Amino acid sequence: MIEVERKFLVTSEDFRTSAESALHIRQGFLCADPERTVRVRLQDGFGKITVKGISDEAGISRFEWEHEINGDEAGQLLKLCTGTEITKTRYRVPFGNHIFEVDVFEGSNAGLIVAEVELQTADEYFEKPAWLGREVTGDPKYYNAQLSINSYKQW
Amino acid sequence: MIEVERKFLVTSEDFRTSAESALHIRQGFLCADPERTVRVRLQDGFGKITVKGISDEAGISRFEWEHEINGDEAGQLLKLCTGTEITKTRYRVPFGNHIFEVDVFEGSNAGLIVAEVELQTADEYFEKPAWLGREVTGDPKYYNAQLSINSYKQW
Repeated sequence: MIEVERKFLVTSEDFRTSAESALHIRQGFLCADPERTVRVRLQDGFGKITVKGISDEAGISRFEWEHEINGDEAGQLLKLCTGTEITKTRYRVPFGNHIFEVDVFEGSNAGLIVAEVELQTADEYFEKPAWLGREVTGDPKYYNAQLSINSYKQW
Repeated sequence: MIEVERKFLVTSEDFRTSAESALHIRQGFLCADPERTVRVRLQDGFGKITVKGISDEAGISRFEWEHEINGDEAGQLLKLCTGTEITKTRYRVPFGNHIFEVDVFEGSNAGLIVAEVELQTADEYFEKPAWLGREVTGDPKYYNAQLSINSYKQW
């Protein structure tokens, strides 16, 4: 599957009033190379393993493969990961005809809040909420894989 | 699960007369770090993704996690792998009370033949067939992950 998404900084906490749900996420990377990342995620007792390929030039679309695994397995795989574990709370925020996923980072990435919107095509129109800031799509330093190696607090 | 196995070079082709089955394998590594390898394998139209942790000091036991995936997915993931794809035929060879898996490598690793035997404990006794040569358990250069980066023909 090819994933098309755009990523933005978030400039205020106002998104919270429209959030439908919040989910705590722990994740790590078995491989954090830009050419191929292998992510292990544990959320709500459920696990997932996700492989992503290299992005297109604009950083908008990217090959993605994902498989569910059990929570215990995810916990064991997290121990093998490189870099620092990422912890964050993900808010699901509907706006216009789209859903924004807003990630509020914790630990060594505390202070960073980013929103992602998934699109059908790279040029699909979507309404922008007031709390949406500068676009950072394709900027490698905002990739979660990079945040596990070079965290926000170190910038 | 912890995997306990010992690995040997194979000194003759005599193992073929006792081989029960042969399976052609294509495999690649999304991550080939000694601390954590992520392997993608395609055999007989079926796929597998396997994560292995670092070995114990003797290189005999190692954390291993494995998941079946479909063949098409494995084919797509193979394209993302680092290094060179490994192709080999694996023979299943019963001897005494154990099963030896004999890998006859092809392509850039042609000429290399290794046998692995899986054990319950690191010191379990097993009978050695006449075609079994020098033990290479724990020698990193015989790890498949390393063979994908530094192939036998380059040695």
